[in-house]
Amino acid sequence: MEAGFFSSSILTQDELKKIAAYKAVEHVESGMILGLGSGSTVKHAVDRIGELLQLGKLHNIIGITTSQNTHQQAVSLGIPLSDLDDHPVLDLAIDGADEVDPHLNLVKGRCGSLLREKMVEGACKKFVVIVDESKLVDYLGGSGLAMPVEVVPFCWKFTAKMLQDLFRNSGCVAKLKCGESGEPFVTDNGNYIVDMYFKKDIGDLRAASEAILRLAGVVEHGMFLDMATTVIVARELGITVKNK
Amino acid sequence: MEAGFFSSSILTQDELKKIAAYKAVEHVESGMILGLGSGSTVKHAVDRIGELLQLGKLHNIIGITTSQNTHQQAVSLGIPLSDLDDHPVLDLAIDGADEVDPHLNLVKGRCGSLLREKMVEGACKKFVVIVDESKLVDYLGGSGLAMPVEVVPFCWKFTAKMLQDLFRNSGCVAKLKCGESGEPFVTDNGNYIVDMYFKKDIGDLRAASEAILRLAGVVEHGMFLDMATTVIVARELGITVKNK
Repeated sequence: MEAGFFSSSILTQDELKKIAAYKAVEHVESGMILGLGSGSTVKHAVDRIGELLQLGKLHNIIGITTSQNTHQQAVSLGIPLSDLDDHPVLDLAIDGADEVDPHLNLVKGRCGSLLREKMVEGACKKFVVIVDESKLVDYLGGSGLAMPVEVVPFCWKFTAKMLQDLFRNSGCVAKLKCGESGEPFVTDNGNYIVDMYFKKDIGDLRAASEAILRLAGVVEHGMFLDMATTVIVARELGITVKNK
Repeated sequence: MEAGFFSSSILTQDELKKIAAYKAVEHVESGMILGLGSGSTVKHAVDRIGELLQLGKLHNIIGITTSQNTHQQAVSLGIPLSDLDDHPVLDLAIDGADEVDPHLNLVKGRCGSLLREKMVEGACKKFVVIVDESKLVDYLGGSGLAMPVEVVPFCWKFTAKMLQDLFRNSGCVAKLKCGESGEPFVTDNGNYIVDMYFKKDIGDLRAASEAILRLAGVVEHGMFLDMATTVIVARELGITVKNK
């Protein structure tokens, strides 16, 4: 673990995010196929990559984005883009996370794009995650916030009930993710999201993952196990880097 | 195992299917929540259930269908219908299969509706499968015909490549299922189907299932493991009943 400290009095939250993002971009080398995630911190990283390309300090980068917003940002910065069909192996991905446990397992996808993120980041040799301190948890689900599961709309109530029953011993409550006007949130893939909330630790994460995926109505879940290789944490007093 | 024999010279293929279907319907009792699959043999079973209801020999049946065709047939016969959301536990399902191995594991879904079938039949206490003799295989994939996998359209080529790589040692070839005019076949859930073809036995089916489901782009596969409780086989010379 490395740490950098500096006076917080002169740094805003956004400046801290920028420092963490720049730290992540130190992992980028010329010639890399790069997975580009989304969120306000990753935005700084993508800006930085664009800048380094323009300065000639990086070249031959190909980006693969997981969201429409990042896609547009990358296009505007002149970062060449491709997709998994043409580049099934990526050198590095940079993205945020909703939760990070002490083993660098993650919860991701609270914004609803967990499937594309998991496809891209699962194809990476290295995966650098940038978060602020509030995302660190003792165990996945420990923030009390949602662990999202993408499900097919067909009989989603049945699937939600099955999910809740699976984690009965952890006090699980499963709820459909809805938009502002109360209609079901629909993913890029035309599916729904069931948000799971836990009162207690769910225990063996690998077993939980297999049990969730075994449910026929489940498309994918938001646990990213053994995928992150580096986590950069922006803290009030500096940044911390955790390596796998 | 039970067997019934009769002269084939006086029975057509359709009559054999009808005998097998009627045998399956012997498992139906009044008050049951029933999963109703699809195909030409199951059609006879649904007809028979409608007839028994009309004759007053069955009552209080609620059907849950896995296809639009069966739904329409059941409606026309006056069979009351519901869904998994309202009835998450079923007493019995009756359906066909594309392959049956000696342990009563199945391949299903060559018609493209594997997901709904798996949801409904996975919720059943008993699952009676009706097939003709040509569907019996030494191992799943052994017919040389497709084992279907439902995948999200996003970067399906990448997912197909991952699937093929998983079963490299079994000589797997993965192909997108297409319609008659060459366009991708789209499932009821808006997804694509990747058909896997094997040259050799894929070995441990449970491990294969978990490996397939672990791929982020996969929604569900057509292996139905440890689900069938009875398989009724229509043979040229009669029917055979195999129980789990």
